Amino acid sequence: MSNKIVTAAVLIIGNEILSGRTQDTNIQFIGQGLVQLGIRLSEIRVVPDVEDAIIDAINTLRSRFDYLFTTGGIGPTHDDITTACVSKAFGVDVARHPVAEALLLARYKPEDVNESRMKMADVPVGSTLIDNPISVAPGYRIENVLVMAGVPRIMQAMFDGIKGNLKGGDPVRSKSIEAYVHEGVLAEPLGKLQDSFPDVDIGSYPFFKDGHLGTCLVARSSDPSKLKAAAKAINTLVGKIYAISN
Amino acid sequence: MSNKIVTAAVLIIGNEILSGRTQDTNIQFIGQGLVQLGIRLSEIRVVPDVEDAIIDAINTLRSRFDYLFTTGGIGPTHDDITTACVSKAFGVDVARHPVAEALLLARYKPEDVNESRMKMADVPVGSTLIDNPISVAPGYRIENVLVMAGVPRIMQAMFDGIKGNLKGGDPVRSKSIEAYVHEGVLAEPLGKLQDSFPDVDIGSYPFFKDGHLGTCLVARSSDPSKLKAAAKAINTLVGKIYAISN
Repeated sequence: MSNKIVTAAVLIIGNEILSGRTQDTNIQFIGQGLVQLGIRLSEIRVVPDVEDAIIDAINTLRSRFDYLFTTGGIGPTHDDITTACVSKAFGVDVARHPVAEALLLARYKPEDVNESRMKMADVPVGSTLIDNPISVAPGYRIENVLVMAGVPRIMQAMFDGIKGNLKGGDPVRSKSIEAYVHEGVLAEPLGKLQDSFPDVDIGSYPFFKDGHLGTCLVARSSDPSKLKAAAKAINTLVGKIYAISN
Repeated sequence: MSNKIVTAAVLIIGNEILSGRTQDTNIQFIGQGLVQLGIRLSEIRVVPDVEDAIIDAINTLRSRFDYLFTTGGIGPTHDDITTACVSKAFGVDVARHPVAEALLLARYKPEDVNESRMKMADVPVGSTLIDNPISVAPGYRIENVLVMAGVPRIMQAMFDGIKGNLKGGDPVRSKSIEAYVHEGVLAEPLGKLQDSFPDVDIGSYPFFKDGHLGTCLVARSSDPSKLKAAAKAINTLVGKIYAISN
């Protein structure tokens, strides 16, 4: 079977996540969406509205991974500097995109058109637009970098619109087994089980639920038959340990 | 007045955030906690359970910022590789910490003690322990790197315990003004207002609430009198524009 791995990074731009003012939800949405596409989210960074930090992150992540998704900083205000940073990262000019311009002019009443709003039609030269069905002002794609809004509802609509254009690898499937068993009891046999399934990633995540400590074991693989075999082995292991400790 | 800026980064280690399986809440908790301490959270990274990625992130972030907080990967299972990575990042050995060992031996019944559990008493040489009032197994600090658990309840207890030992700068205070005014109408005068308050960071965050689009303006500064003046000017601006657009 093929073994094509496609990777991605997410760059969240904006002070509001760093200050704790806003609870991020974009990470989980994009993470789950990429899993379905067979794209492995391999790194996330959150940086403030600071030019050097943004440019540095864009250039590192776009060269290291197959896709880079950015969110935030493409609105009309002074703190929206993502487009300026993306263009500097690529060494290209910013130019008004005629389609974006037409979309915005059609959206606003003539008396509501102003230069700040029209700034949202400016994109790095060479970009293609990403549709914004919520509030019109588009995102854009330049090479492997996809630039989206930060407001979750808009970001989600943009992401759903571009999904069809992304090339995924073999989809990674997962199986979860939850048990009220302490991680520390499972750890040794689980490590051996992991060794015997090198093509399956086995993660162990402790949790508290209703005052009890338990463990969620997650097996992930792009090979369905190996995944099934590993999940079966985990089930057997957990059942055995559960029987011993009760 | 002094103008001491103290910075921090957060490194979240673990596949469960990247896969979208788990909704992160640690970022917001730490972000808010650091604001109260006068520490500026300047970057967040999320990396998978992959040694090179973890070591690279630790070394970059610990040299770039005053503090680095890590979460995740210090449990007993095979996918808990944070301690091995921290020790490699610092070029020191891992050794069993006698206090941590005693704590764990006191916690478990003799028949429940096993090598995987005792691995949680291993720390990079030169570390001091971070108390874990929830499930005993400690975190640790080495130089400016503070290594905490990933489970939110445990991480929060660890963070609360070490807060008193962190040296903050001038606390950054903020004032928020929310209004059902579109960002695009505010953008130009707001940009000018930002120019006239260089010591105040003014952020503009669009939101959807009850089907209406509005904007939350947040002013942040370590200078209380300048913050007050900027917030007053923002209030006046918003009131004026609200009056015009209604």
